[in-house]
Amino acid sequence: MAIQSAVKRIEGVLAPVVTPFRPDLSPDPDRFVRHCRWLLRNGCAGLAVFGTNSEANSLSVEEKLELLDALVTGGVAAAALMPGTGHCALSDSVRMTREAVRLGCSGVLMLPPFYYKGVSDDGLYRYFAEVIERVGDDRLRLYLYHIPPVSNVPITLELIERLLARYPGVVAGAKDSSGDWNNTRSMLDRFKDRAFDVFAGSEVFLLENLRHGGKGCITATGNVNPAAIGQVFRDWRGPDAERLQAGISATRKIVQTVPMIPALKAIVAHFGNDAQWRAVRPPLVELTAGEGAGLIRDLKAAGFSMPGLG
Amino acid sequence: MAIQSAVKRIEGVLAPVVTPFRPDLSPDPDRFVRHCRWLLRNGCAGLAVFGTNSEANSLSVEEKLELLDALVTGGVAAAALMPGTGHCALSDSVRMTREAVRLGCSGVLMLPPFYYKGVSDDGLYRYFAEVIERVGDDRLRLYLYHIPPVSNVPITLELIERLLARYPGVVAGAKDSSGDWNNTRSMLDRFKDRAFDVFAGSEVFLLENLRHGGKGCITATGNVNPAAIGQVFRDWRGPDAERLQAGISATRKIVQTVPMIPALKAIVAHFGNDAQWRAVRPPLVELTAGEGAGLIRDLKAAGFSMPGLG
Repeated sequence: MAIQSAVKRIEGVLAPVVTPFRPDLSPDPDRFVRHCRWLLRNGCAGLAVFGTNSEANSLSVEEKLELLDALVTGGVAAAALMPGTGHCALSDSVRMTREAVRLGCSGVLMLPPFYYKGVSDDGLYRYFAEVIERVGDDRLRLYLYHIPPVSNVPITLELIERLLARYPGVVAGAKDSSGDWNNTRSMLDRFKDRAFDVFAGSEVFLLENLRHGGKGCITATGNVNPAAIGQVFRDWRGPDAERLQAGISATRKIVQTVPMIPALKAIVAHFGNDAQWRAVRPPLVELTAGEGAGLIRDLKAAGFSMPGLG
Repeated sequence: MAIQSAVKRIEGVLAPVVTPFRPDLSPDPDRFVRHCRWLLRNGCAGLAVFGTNSEANSLSVEEKLELLDALVTGGVAAAALMPGTGHCALSDSVRMTREAVRLGCSGVLMLPPFYYKGVSDDGLYRYFAEVIERVGDDRLRLYLYHIPPVSNVPITLELIERLLARYPGVVAGAKDSSGDWNNTRSMLDRFKDRAFDVFAGSEVFLLENLRHGGKGCITATGNVNPAAIGQVFRDWRGPDAERLQAGISATRKIVQTVPMIPALKAIVAHFGNDAQWRAVRPPLVELTAGEGAGLIRDLKAAGFSMPGLG
């Protein structure tokens, strides 16, 4: 397959959208669609639904397909979507990826299979290659999801090299959630001029990523602070870039004082005046009342708000 | 719920049955049923289908349900089955566990949700409790699957304590695949007289486990060496116990010189004269020709065979 440079690729700030649950812990499509719309109106270029912060692996494939369908039916443009479609089971990954392509999603963000540890690059290559071959659609844009602190299965530069050589244009980029800027920098340097789009896994690295040829970030706090993060993306060449970057890094630092996923949900619940948003599926647990109150107090003290939410 | 001591629980040697694949990597129910029958005729008391060595997490829920149905339809007694039903997604675990109970399986072996790392015992407790409550069937016998080298999410003694206190009789035991005899010993000592059945995760610990009140083992190599391992279980009080234990430990040592799952499949393929058995799903890879030949050579040199296979 040749590189299909004519197709417009997504870039900018993407949120790995948090997934709302009803009191019985079933996914809530209405709240989900509303939050997605708010994100797109407030600075997000796209939505990496079904990411780590979405509790995607706490959802069945059927539950995810229903939410994806609700989004598209609810008027969210498929071109703004980069759903997570990587599962431990090849069959699940093929099913989700095929559906994402069928719906016209801009791309998919794929975890490696993460149950077995210490697997070889040969095995991972074969895994991604099987997904690509079985989906068998030139419209597929596959972004590799490198998040070793959680998956414990890294996506090495050598693996990317092999996949890019065989599937240029389809293998479209990566999200680097290693938390290690040196690794992101290595991806950027090694694959520049290869139509390989690198997204930082945190807005803390957004400005540096853009300065070195990266395309944006896919970041947890994009769920709550999209306008400010989006502004860094828009104005990164401007005189205020460093100050804007410092602002979003400071906000993230406040959020990070407590566990990220329940924190994001507590923030959406508070500023959207909708307590049901706090619900997480086990094995995660909600913030304690004290943690939640402290987080909101610190955010307000820093001037944080979420206008138009709820 | 009261402890239902009247119900006969499974004990002895269980194999986490390897899953055969067709050339297109779809699961092969015919080969699966044949291998399960061979195992039950040759020393296995039960079958822990859909375990780590079954590549269970490389299968979709639908694929597993089809295989389980094929077994029961194929005449394998549900009372001999302890399927793995633990997934990252609560909804998947509930669905699989409910079906296992409906079919009359002796028990289920449940992994903790294994995507998020560093989760709290509160979150894990809530996870298992939700599964138990949602399945809502007194026939459920739930065995906790402690395999931190792979899952990276341990089942602590404190978690077991809490679950046992709330769900005695339903929480029926554990498989300890920590590889740490001291941990197995701690489980045995702490929960003796609590109707909590401990299975060693390797036959290397079988004799020690039985001597300290354990109920058997659930072991990878049960797939290929069930008769000899079953003999240790039967004769563990006899004068030959140490010698028999040394024999099965020596056989395991040979198998362990190469990656376990492709090794088991290569052994079944060779002694069953059925090369298709070698197939694994990515991210795993088959043994190289050299690895396979060396393994078979070493096993034969040690007098190993699989009579009646194939």
